[in-house]
Amino acid sequence: MTKFWTDTVKGLTPYVPGEQRSGDNIIKLNTNENPYPPSPEVMRAIGNVSSDVLRRYPDPESVELREALAAYHGVALENVFVGNGSDEILALAFLAFFTDGKALQYPDITYSFYPVYCDLYSIESQIVSLEADYSLSMERFVPNAGSIIFPNPNAPTGLATPRDSIDTLLKKHTEQVLLVDEAYADLGAQSVVSLVNEYPNLLVSQTFSKGRSLAGMRLGVAFGDKSLIEGLQRVKNSFNSYPVDAVAQAAGIASIEDDSYYKQTLSQIIESRDWTTEQLRSRGFEVLASSANFIFARVPRPTKVDGCEPAAHELFQRLSAAGVLVRYWKKPRLEDWLRISIGTSSDMSKLMDCIDA
Amino acid sequence: MTKFWTDTVKGLTPYVPGEQRSGDNIIKLNTNENPYPPSPEVMRAIGNVSSDVLRRYPDPESVELREALAAYHGVALENVFVGNGSDEILALAFLAFFTDGKALQYPDITYSFYPVYCDLYSIESQIVSLEADYSLSMERFVPNAGSIIFPNPNAPTGLATPRDSIDTLLKKHTEQVLLVDEAYADLGAQSVVSLVNEYPNLLVSQTFSKGRSLAGMRLGVAFGDKSLIEGLQRVKNSFNSYPVDAVAQAAGIASIEDDSYYKQTLSQIIESRDWTTEQLRSRGFEVLASSANFIFARVPRPTKVDGCEPAAHELFQRLSAAGVLVRYWKKPRLEDWLRISIGTSSDMSKLMDCIDA
Repeated sequence: MTKFWTDTVKGLTPYVPGEQRSGDNIIKLNTNENPYPPSPEVMRAIGNVSSDVLRRYPDPESVELREALAAYHGVALENVFVGNGSDEILALAFLAFFTDGKALQYPDITYSFYPVYCDLYSIESQIVSLEADYSLSMERFVPNAGSIIFPNPNAPTGLATPRDSIDTLLKKHTEQVLLVDEAYADLGAQSVVSLVNEYPNLLVSQTFSKGRSLAGMRLGVAFGDKSLIEGLQRVKNSFNSYPVDAVAQAAGIASIEDDSYYKQTLSQIIESRDWTTEQLRSRGFEVLASSANFIFARVPRPTKVDGCEPAAHELFQRLSAAGVLVRYWKKPRLEDWLRISIGTSSDMSKLMDCIDA
Repeated sequence: MTKFWTDTVKGLTPYVPGEQRSGDNIIKLNTNENPYPPSPEVMRAIGNVSSDVLRRYPDPESVELREALAAYHGVALENVFVGNGSDEILALAFLAFFTDGKALQYPDITYSFYPVYCDLYSIESQIVSLEADYSLSMERFVPNAGSIIFPNPNAPTGLATPRDSIDTLLKKHTEQVLLVDEAYADLGAQSVVSLVNEYPNLLVSQTFSKGRSLAGMRLGVAFGDKSLIEGLQRVKNSFNSYPVDAVAQAAGIASIEDDSYYKQTLSQIIESRDWTTEQLRSRGFEVLASSANFIFARVPRPTKVDGCEPAAHELFQRLSAAGVLVRYWKKPRLEDWLRISIGTSSDMSKLMDCIDA
């Protein structure tokens, strides 16, 4: 720490992403990356970006990419915003809509970047508890008491909230923004993008990092009423005019256009997820019904011995030593669980071999 | 405007970048882009990014790229930070270092994004006037009265401040950060990167958008004492963990490695700048001595007629109609001037033809 840090910097507890260890023998199931590469059309589009395009600033409003997204989702251009990953979109949205002096409502077990943004902008939090079965009940949110954010499906549980339940909440919650973070929604949850024209306070964020295999490219998207999108644009244009580079714009368009590849890899992931769930359950693990590209699994405790390390932590460490990376949190209600990203079927077989060993 | 916008959003006056019109017959001298493409090695590096790299998150700390920059500039890895263009670095630095409750000092005529950041974070400003000849005197800044930021060379004047003058200011200004924005420094100004180990409060930002022809790729860099870099990292990791994508990291490394190409294109731009300056002066324009990839030129007024449009505005409009884009601001002390980016020698000849017509 130094005298040149402002109180803002001093007070931060930055987000810590999953370990990015790599190597030939590493099976990386810790950051919810897609085990399949992006579409060959995406690789072609990246290779085709000309040097003349690179020497110029990109389109600051990413119009072509937003038009492709609008057409794909059946909304208008003015309902679409793109950013440098959905994390940047969340960072801008927190500043644009959640600094109204009211406490932001979000689940106690959820994406751990939310409290970091609250810290950054001095936003108060109103924490909403998950049910005993780890599901998120919309009835726990207090309508109009403050803005609301939650992921659908939630992380790290993978449990999805039905569209109808969100619709019911939106009918009552009309005075502040409701942000549904759909980072994993293409793997089984019901998206609420189709509702953005019904509710002027509904904002939906999605990402190209998971289902679309472009974590390395940094591309996120938000859908909402024209005025919410304009609010995001105002904050973006007061922070960084061009967060989405020319290569990312081209890659994003190509990804949207190759829909059959996208759908095919999604179904392969869902197939591996089902297989892994079944395998783990047959070994005594409790596995929540995931709608994401990861599963949340409770590691069976042979015989409960007080004071010992949770069995999940021991398994996490043993897997790590064997080169299989998964995610573990030593926190209340999470310490018996592992979050395991879905890899290829070969990755998941090796995971089972390691668990059996 | 809508009830869902916070006061933050309502109060913003976002930055407006130069027009991005394009087409075969457009000569684009309005956004200080490099007229030459990036190095062929950069294009090769982009084409070589594998699909396996793209499906994974990039290195959030961009270590390889930072190592290349550290070696190139003769500093340590811990002295280097990279971001999504130098604008993002400025946005993070304003939040990290300038929200200390003291008024930020910057020139009255300068990069117009500074007041936008001040607006965004509610930072007070202490405006420092340029001299009558448009130069920036370091003696106008009040040491230790508040943080300081200025571009070197300044924009849109193109005038550089000598390293010794900055060094003298740093000897007195020790209590808050001094940020030197060196976006254009590779075209003739004296960089102060070599001073970062002498002054713990010196932060220097640079960009790959101008001299390195990578405006489309979004890559900026900051140099400073370890603790300032750590402050930037804390804010970055509380906003967006991965703002520099895998392709941009690869492109940046390749650009640093092909130094001879970089130096050669810089000298071509400097040659065109000298030629254009001479041509304009011979036509009665006053042209400031530029150390940047643009020149700032006062358009001669034939006979001053009160109430008429400034001759510079008329020339700006006529050039625009002829497909030659330059930048014009209808503001005090600027309204008789045009900022003209340096293009290829052919671009600059055509500009002269248009002016003569």
